[in-house]
Amino acid sequence: MPYPEEAEGFQVDSPDSWTTFHKRYFPLNPFGDYDVDVKIEACGICGSDVHIISGGWGKQHFPLCVGHEIVGTAIRVGPKVTLIKEGQRVGVGAQVFSCGECKQCKNDNETYCQYKLIDTYGSKWPETGLVSQGGYASHIRVHEWWVFPIPEKLETTIVAPMLCAGITVFSPLVRNGCGPGKKVGIVGIGGLGHFGLQFAKALGAEVWAISRTRAKEEDARKLGADGFIATAEEGWEKPHRCTFDLIVNAANSTKNFDLAKYLSMMDVHGHWINVGLPEEEGQVIKAQHLISNGVLIGATHLGSRREMLQMLQLAADKNLKAWAEEVQINEENLAVAVQRMKKGDVRYRMTLTGYDKVFGN
Amino acid sequence: MPYPEEAEGFQVDSPDSWTTFHKRYFPLNPFGDYDVDVKIEACGICGSDVHIISGGWGKQHFPLCVGHEIVGTAIRVGPKVTLIKEGQRVGVGAQVFSCGECKQCKNDNETYCQYKLIDTYGSKWPETGLVSQGGYASHIRVHEWWVFPIPEKLETTIVAPMLCAGITVFSPLVRNGCGPGKKVGIVGIGGLGHFGLQFAKALGAEVWAISRTRAKEEDARKLGADGFIATAEEGWEKPHRCTFDLIVNAANSTKNFDLAKYLSMMDVHGHWINVGLPEEEGQVIKAQHLISNGVLIGATHLGSRREMLQMLQLAADKNLKAWAEEVQINEENLAVAVQRMKKGDVRYRMTLTGYDKVFGN
Repeated sequence: MPYPEEAEGFQVDSPDSWTTFHKRYFPLNPFGDYDVDVKIEACGICGSDVHIISGGWGKQHFPLCVGHEIVGTAIRVGPKVTLIKEGQRVGVGAQVFSCGECKQCKNDNETYCQYKLIDTYGSKWPETGLVSQGGYASHIRVHEWWVFPIPEKLETTIVAPMLCAGITVFSPLVRNGCGPGKKVGIVGIGGLGHFGLQFAKALGAEVWAISRTRAKEEDARKLGADGFIATAEEGWEKPHRCTFDLIVNAANSTKNFDLAKYLSMMDVHGHWINVGLPEEEGQVIKAQHLISNGVLIGATHLGSRREMLQMLQLAADKNLKAWAEEVQINEENLAVAVQRMKKGDVRYRMTLTGYDKVFGN
Repeated sequence: MPYPEEAEGFQVDSPDSWTTFHKRYFPLNPFGDYDVDVKIEACGICGSDVHIISGGWGKQHFPLCVGHEIVGTAIRVGPKVTLIKEGQRVGVGAQVFSCGECKQCKNDNETYCQYKLIDTYGSKWPETGLVSQGGYASHIRVHEWWVFPIPEKLETTIVAPMLCAGITVFSPLVRNGCGPGKKVGIVGIGGLGHFGLQFAKALGAEVWAISRTRAKEEDARKLGADGFIATAEEGWEKPHRCTFDLIVNAANSTKNFDLAKYLSMMDVHGHWINVGLPEEEGQVIKAQHLISNGVLIGATHLGSRREMLQMLQLAADKNLKAWAEEVQINEENLAVAVQRMKKGDVRYRMTLTGYDKVFGN
């Protein structure tokens, strides 16, 4: 089989036609010594895909093939590759390059590299001017650092959504001390949150799901929540005043979000970490809101390679899974799927499969 | 000398007449077993005093005698007092009571007590309905936990402003790892900031002063700054991108404050801690502003007794001082002084003295 110099994938041409996907060929970057070619077998549909193609996060490079929860097979490895073997089942997440040389890259903070950070799709490669293209496609070519061996025990379709949604909540949990003896909350029971509950529980914390209504309480408890808070209920925050060590906010919207009430639940110097990236204007924060318990508000961005491998191993060891329905990749199904994502009509993730049918074997 | 059952002090009657001080008697709370009566000899004028009497922080209890940077002599100690001796020179800061029983009170977080937190002035004592009155007065009666022995080496007039302004910046420095090998910034070279520079330097950090113009650069360097950043200069933030471990923001205003530029200077997961409490509306924060370096935004509130004693000892050991001018306490001088504070026309603090002249000996 010849090595691909281009990939075939489903592209969107502009936010005005964000539900229309065009099957097309596009070129890959020249193959480098550390590169791995991945033949894609499945890809999760991430909220980011929808924010990006529908214009919610601002101007992007089009035409664009999105998708950054990729699982496939390494079909070619560069001569200097040591981390990945040809034939291995591997994952690729939402980032495909960083400088590799700076303080951040050398300290497990490569997703915070300030020098050269290439997203899996939509970033322009400075050397070639090519815009990176994602996983709604036949192949992807990625530096080995950003390619992750998948433990055998994890099924392709249920592991794919972990590569972005999973790591996005796993990293803030481990970076902010989630573990035994800690009270941890997850706001928003969706694609991110349903992993957050599983991981926080697997890491040993007391876990609370925080949602608007009790509609998802049964799911939340199955996912590992020890307790459930419904913010539509009067006085919801009061019993928890000053008790949470960590809350990871995976909510996808800031509308009607009374941040001060949430923050009142934080223990002194507790950490409130945003991982959702709502499209709306941000929230007004006054120093006065923060001083009664000295809470810290932050955000994290994906997670390091080390954390990615740690997460995958934890998922294998503890039998953690995406709750993902399979969607056969094609133009029609993509149009429906991204609209369902936009509406939040999915519990809790979709994984595109059947790549052989559209891209050949 | 009989023990006082009331104190005499200078009160303001409402925000409409916030520069008019009335010399009056007001009752003290009944003397408790753990109480200490302090005959006041000096009191710093704090920005809080001005925010409170002029209505900038909202509704308050009037008439009110402000002042919470108090130094004096313990003239009476309750039968159960063990921390303070009669005749000792002592300080009192901005808080005079907390429950003493809760998790926070038992863990050096008594300024974050969620159950009973009484400010030095303007809080209503639940038992008596009396509103606490501050240090522009002859005496104050305080639970021993909130009374701090002053090391002999520190002069009364130069230590007074440490009791609020000092501890307000000292606590976030030590709580957020200020020390050797850390790059620490202090935003706002005023009452708070001029202590921040001294303490950060004394704790061993590389210290940067951050101010609008270079007008205070010479002062800042005398106070301990290794470097100076003037935010009126184009591109000021660029050389510092992703390098600060900690910035303590002591600015008194959020006007024209381009927070995103400040935050871009933070190292990954660096801490941006607000200690100023501006009167304006807060700042809009989007998760997007925080993710490129995973910065954490927080605030702290005063500091614990343990930190207060640590700060005073550090000041004594390293010869740190408030840059404070002395102002003879009386109606006319108070009117001028609070207006100068409002305008920021002071480098960097004023201490009221001459208490004997107005209150007798």
